[in-house]
Amino acid sequence: MANTPITVAHGDGIGPEIMAATLHILKEAGARLDIEEIEIGRKVYLAGNSAGIAPESWNSLRRTKVFLKAPITTPQGGGFSSLNVAVRKTLGLYANIRPCVSYHPFVQTKHPTMDVVIVRENEEDVYAGIEYRQTDQVEECLKLSSRPGSEKIVRYAFEYAKKFNRKKVTCFIKDNIMKRTDGLFHKIFDAIAPEYPEIEADDRIVDIGAAKLADTPENFDVIVMPNLYGDVLSDVAAQIAGSVGLAGSSNIGEQVAMFEAIHGSAPRRAGQNLANPSGLFLGAILMLVHINQPDAATLAHNAWLRTIEDGVHTFDIFKEGVSREKVGTKEFAKAVVARLGQKPETLKTVEYKPDADGAASDAKPIYSSPQRQKKDLVGVDVFLDWFNGKFYGAANELGALVEAVGGDGLKLQTIANRGVKVYPNGLPDTFTVDHWRCRFVDESQEGNAVSHTQIITLLQRFDEAGLDVIKTENLYNFDGAKGYSG
Amino acid sequence: MANTPITVAHGDGIGPEIMAATLHILKEAGARLDIEEIEIGRKVYLAGNSAGIAPESWNSLRRTKVFLKAPITTPQGGGFSSLNVAVRKTLGLYANIRPCVSYHPFVQTKHPTMDVVIVRENEEDVYAGIEYRQTDQVEECLKLSSRPGSEKIVRYAFEYAKKFNRKKVTCFIKDNIMKRTDGLFHKIFDAIAPEYPEIEADDRIVDIGAAKLADTPENFDVIVMPNLYGDVLSDVAAQIAGSVGLAGSSNIGEQVAMFEAIHGSAPRRAGQNLANPSGLFLGAILMLVHINQPDAATLAHNAWLRTIEDGVHTFDIFKEGVSREKVGTKEFAKAVVARLGQKPETLKTVEYKPDADGAASDAKPIYSSPQRQKKDLVGVDVFLDWFNGKFYGAANELGALVEAVGGDGLKLQTIANRGVKVYPNGLPDTFTVDHWRCRFVDESQEGNAVSHTQIITLLQRFDEAGLDVIKTENLYNFDGAKGYSG
Repeated sequence: MANTPITVAHGDGIGPEIMAATLHILKEAGARLDIEEIEIGRKVYLAGNSAGIAPESWNSLRRTKVFLKAPITTPQGGGFSSLNVAVRKTLGLYANIRPCVSYHPFVQTKHPTMDVVIVRENEEDVYAGIEYRQTDQVEECLKLSSRPGSEKIVRYAFEYAKKFNRKKVTCFIKDNIMKRTDGLFHKIFDAIAPEYPEIEADDRIVDIGAAKLADTPENFDVIVMPNLYGDVLSDVAAQIAGSVGLAGSSNIGEQVAMFEAIHGSAPRRAGQNLANPSGLFLGAILMLVHINQPDAATLAHNAWLRTIEDGVHTFDIFKEGVSREKVGTKEFAKAVVARLGQKPETLKTVEYKPDADGAASDAKPIYSSPQRQKKDLVGVDVFLDWFNGKFYGAANELGALVEAVGGDGLKLQTIANRGVKVYPNGLPDTFTVDHWRCRFVDESQEGNAVSHTQIITLLQRFDEAGLDVIKTENLYNFDGAKGYSG
Repeated sequence: MANTPITVAHGDGIGPEIMAATLHILKEAGARLDIEEIEIGRKVYLAGNSAGIAPESWNSLRRTKVFLKAPITTPQGGGFSSLNVAVRKTLGLYANIRPCVSYHPFVQTKHPTMDVVIVRENEEDVYAGIEYRQTDQVEECLKLSSRPGSEKIVRYAFEYAKKFNRKKVTCFIKDNIMKRTDGLFHKIFDAIAPEYPEIEADDRIVDIGAAKLADTPENFDVIVMPNLYGDVLSDVAAQIAGSVGLAGSSNIGEQVAMFEAIHGSAPRRAGQNLANPSGLFLGAILMLVHINQPDAATLAHNAWLRTIEDGVHTFDIFKEGVSREKVGTKEFAKAVVARLGQKPETLKTVEYKPDADGAASDAKPIYSSPQRQKKDLVGVDVFLDWFNGKFYGAANELGALVEAVGGDGLKLQTIANRGVKVYPNGLPDTFTVDHWRCRFVDESQEGNAVSHTQIITLLQRFDEAGLDVIKTENLYNFDGAKGYSG
């Protein structure tokens, strides 16, 4: 079989040592790799590349489409941005996959039978990083959730479950509150799940789900979630498994995929043959399965499990009474190589399957582009910066001012402050800040369509009245159904 | 001393039984209460009150300002909204406090020395519930964070720590990503903390913080956080403490405060003298401290701890070998009353202090209204719904169309899609959806001020060009500092 080209970066700190150990095991396990090396991290940052990667390195990533990355050190001081964010955004790595496994009784954990995979959406949600301060008192961040983005991640979670013999996919959302954004994610989960009848599908509200995950993680298998929940709960899962130093992860895009350890570059441990290469190694196992070399992945992973079981441990997981031999980075890799062909006796043996022939051509599209729904403009929320010095009981004064700018077919319906209706008929107990949402609809109040021109002239009247418009949000119906919250 | 008027609601399911048990203990412990009863829950919903509370009941809450609430049952079917949300929003209950305590070895937990209090902001963040669908593919939710709202909750956390003899307050935020919204919360935490030199203050990024909380909760004391993180992590903390059935909570407003159990009404257990009243009882202890009856609170709480220690347990926490006597709701309350005056021997004794004389008049304001900063309008982000059928490489086509609507002193600076810059000089690898942000600034590109009129005429040109504007976000500087993300 032909070799698969991959791009490798040795990184900073303990990076070069754990990468050498990982590549050594892979080679001995028969992985068929053509390695292109690129430089990333500290030196590259200091040479003036703000994201820690040189422009020419992108070409290697685009060519090989597979990136095995060691941890890096971001230099202290301003002006340096995250390499991972740059790679993720530039190459559209929409899925972050983090298996969190307990290796009880060989590695300490309160959750001995845990084996959870977190599949985190990686591009959307509040992480789009779109924020505004438009009044003295209020900051705003946009949370975005797209249909194709949600489809991509949900589909990936089920495909991952299928490929890695997983039995169940659970969706974590907060759609009792965020009915539209998280509701979209949930709806798409429910639509895609039936295409995988062999995999159980269920869902949890993220608060209860997180509580159960933290307490009894053995009841979960694969969990798919929006970006923020995934960020928090993938850290929770890795920590309670006891495997932060032992966990690998992948970042998957439509074209390119990146594989790494979840830990950092640990500069204080560098150059001493101390570091545990297991996190990066397990990232590399995900890579071998991704590039359809399940034979090498199975061989290497089982040998690694046997090594852990045999108590051959680096300092970070060494424990008197459990471990048998304290080894360095190189010796650990040698111990794994010496066990190639062996399987674990207590821990679960792995066996990866090759991709089915023609899988690529049979594969379902990872997102759809269905007929666009009919969209009708039915109103506008005009947001104002307005403050009369009062935190209570100010709404009626503003209400009178805003009523007066209605006209040309548009009428004020309500004013709300931080999502609470305060006009008309607001309550004196409601605390208000200087950020007001004024909802205008067709004066018939029957949901008739309005025009962009009507909205623009409304904004002119606001301006003439000396009211400080800071933002607008148009109100739409889609195929006749309301597309905005109450 | 005069009695304190409070409003009591007996609720649904097990509510009436656990309320009776709680009030019995409070009375015997010498609590000085004048009780006004109101009805909430199932019957009130079905009588046509959509939030499960009758209009006249609000008057009682406003009069007594103290609400001891049993759990309720929300009827199945549509049209019923959350009573808690209604009370919280209407009365401005900005702080949710949830102590999560382990009672090891008397109640099972993996975290025997845990004693954490989660202080959750209760009004802002994505829970303002402001959502829009404005394109076929994208849903949006606004996350709002206000200075007075953040001040209120942070100040409350420190005041709580002071009152309850706590040593440390930790702030959980994600301000490496949400630099403005979570950054504001963090900044206010840092500003208020030095006013409490006797209390240690630190902060964690919420992902790492959550992981540490789930793994080693004994390292935390009071944790204050924005609404969403607090929602998720207060459930995590209660669950891993083993105390979901034993935890009370308070919801605090500037005027009114509400005290309750964190569990539900458990209709299947109702009317059988089975339910554990401890959650509501511990909510009532928070209430007694709130209304400055620390003597009764101390007496009752210590007797309760001693009862738990003595192995007098209701069915939900009864465990062979640990518990000694399985009792019903009434018998549990009698057992607590019989121990009034006793203290726990293994568990930690509590001792509540009276409010200092004149505390009310010396108290710092819970939020400030400083001089408003100078605000300059320097541009606008115009968001478009636009789709040419392509998910890759569409930006240049749109760029040409949008460049053409510039003029009258405004110039297109960048176009971004889901927070990633795609024009000019976008990358072909970037996946784009039908939701585009077009940033216009003064044509000098030097950050000069622009006018509302310029923005309105820009919107007119968008409309004339047939480009579908769905929302706008104005760009401002405050005292010369940029008030928007890149």
